[in-house]
Amino acid sequence: MPDTADETHMATAVALAEAVRTRTAPNPWVGAVLVTVAGAVHTGATEPPGGRHAEVVALDAARAAEGPDAAVGATVHVTLEPCAHQGRTGPCADALIAAGVARVVVAVADPDTRVAGEGIERLRAAGVAVEVGCRADEVAAQLAAYLHHRRTGRPLVVLKLAATLDGRTAAADGTSQWITGVDARTDAHRLRAESQAIVVGSGTVTADDPTLTTRLVEGPDPRRVVLGTAPAGARVHPCLEWGRADGDLGALLDRLGAEGVLQVLVEGGATVATAFHRAGLVDRYVLYLAPALAGGDDGPGLFRGPGLATITDLWRGRIAAVDPVGDDLRVDLRPVPARGAA
Amino acid sequence: MPDTADETHMATAVALAEAVRTRTAPNPWVGAVLVTVAGAVHTGATEPPGGRHAEVVALDAARAAEGPDAAVGATVHVTLEPCAHQGRTGPCADALIAAGVARVVVAVADPDTRVAGEGIERLRAAGVAVEVGCRADEVAAQLAAYLHHRRTGRPLVVLKLAATLDGRTAAADGTSQWITGVDARTDAHRLRAESQAIVVGSGTVTADDPTLTTRLVEGPDPRRVVLGTAPAGARVHPCLEWGRADGDLGALLDRLGAEGVLQVLVEGGATVATAFHRAGLVDRYVLYLAPALAGGDDGPGLFRGPGLATITDLWRGRIAAVDPVGDDLRVDLRPVPARGAA
Repeated sequence: MPDTADETHMATAVALAEAVRTRTAPNPWVGAVLVTVAGAVHTGATEPPGGRHAEVVALDAARAAEGPDAAVGATVHVTLEPCAHQGRTGPCADALIAAGVARVVVAVADPDTRVAGEGIERLRAAGVAVEVGCRADEVAAQLAAYLHHRRTGRPLVVLKLAATLDGRTAAADGTSQWITGVDARTDAHRLRAESQAIVVGSGTVTADDPTLTTRLVEGPDPRRVVLGTAPAGARVHPCLEWGRADGDLGALLDRLGAEGVLQVLVEGGATVATAFHRAGLVDRYVLYLAPALAGGDDGPGLFRGPGLATITDLWRGRIAAVDPVGDDLRVDLRPVPARGAA
Repeated sequence: MPDTADETHMATAVALAEAVRTRTAPNPWVGAVLVTVAGAVHTGATEPPGGRHAEVVALDAARAAEGPDAAVGATVHVTLEPCAHQGRTGPCADALIAAGVARVVVAVADPDTRVAGEGIERLRAAGVAVEVGCRADEVAAQLAAYLHHRRTGRPLVVLKLAATLDGRTAAADGTSQWITGVDARTDAHRLRAESQAIVVGSGTVTADDPTLTTRLVEGPDPRRVVLGTAPAGARVHPCLEWGRADGDLGALLDRLGAEGVLQVLVEGGATVATAFHRAGLVDRYVLYLAPALAGGDDGPGLFRGPGLATITDLWRGRIAAVDPVGDDLRVDLRPVPARGAA
């Protein structure tokens, strides 16, 4: 069983993974902590695609510091099951075995069909003690988009919404900048950086000409997807323009998933939000609520068109988290039963 | 200066006051903790109107247990400045002096014009050491309705709102039971029990025929006020029917304040909520938000009629607290700068 020391080292591994959250897709963001028989600690995190996996980074660090036998008898704590397949790098399970590691503590198993328990089996067959489940819930939450993608073939769909506490997104004249504060907008840019694609409607592109960049945070800009057509000269170019002839939203998610998009951020406007919501395709609703009231019923709301006909049709989710973000609130709302998250 | 022991005893006094929160109006809900020279502790809380104040209850408890000189040299911790006027009971300041108390620790001064520092002055003039400010913020929050009433002559106005996270209060067909869960409804009944009056519109009375009782909690039923006319036979009777000829909402608050109502709960519907909000008369907005989405724009919202014309007119408050209540969220929203609360 994992002990207190394992929990502590796994917490470090989680932090190492978090630091590379936006830089590893389509590979998972993983952290590893190697503890030698003498008690020395060496760490690693997944490198950008084509680079080393976390376990190998930690093994290399140990050997660079202490010599070729540094990992003999060591314990390695890793957030995700070591891979067993020959990808752009060699299988990590084989590297751990070759290095002489005695024990591997894993947070969660990898649902990727090329791994799916084989990494653990290979380690055990080689006589390495393997324990699975240390900080499993925490890591499952951290890797939710990756795990969802590997299980379903589709990206995790995050719908971003921002409104007043009475549910309005703009004034009667359509003006809306800024209802939420700079902290909420920065937080939303972090969501963008953690996503590999961002979806908006052509109406939003025409009305706001957004750049959809992550300029408020450090991280890559996601791929831009426009439902419909983006006008020539729009700042959203280059982008994927997805028309009705290309298929429904499910087909779009299949396509993005096949291209390695692990998480897609749906940013609006209300028509696009409504389409994803009604199709039951949203895995996470992230609502930024400003401490403000429109005080009437003539401003636009978060969704558009006929809502529920009668109260028994009400869509109910569960609130996974509520956090203050500057002066605003961020509410993490999930479908019931939870979609996507482990 | 109050020391750690004073803080601890004042925390007890706050808890004692909380336990009588719904039973003392129009008097303040106050707690007192008396510590004898030998270190024995005796407590008191305000009795219902006509009964003893907290300090006298504590003095009587000490004397009943230890004899007539029990309070000589004692320290008394009391959440509100001892009164100095002859009401239905004698002045508490005089009772403390007569009992030989050496030291009084007060959380907040009483803004009541019949006290307003005179209780403290009278104690000091008699040689009693008085310290003010121990747990002052906590007690000011606990006594907010009383302090607001004594400062302004009007009750603290609490507007209760309940909606989905996208700001809808009912389905397109008008059905609305139940958007929030039983825990939120019970919490709202607690708000009723802490209020001495509750205001609804005649439309709500006609549509829902509410009883406006506190049946889900222990506590008195507030006085019922209907804006407009309640139909004969409505369950809200007996009630005060307030028509346009009786004056505006400010005049209603003046009347209720003059009659000793310290807190009024405005429960709706949307027309009444909008009227109080637009008039700037709301001191606290308590929003119960269900983890649910209407998903369209055809259901009624929290407010009615023209809202903000342009975004720069947006009404902004501050979020004083967010708490889970069952599966729902309770958001305590306050005007900026804070109205009413000390």
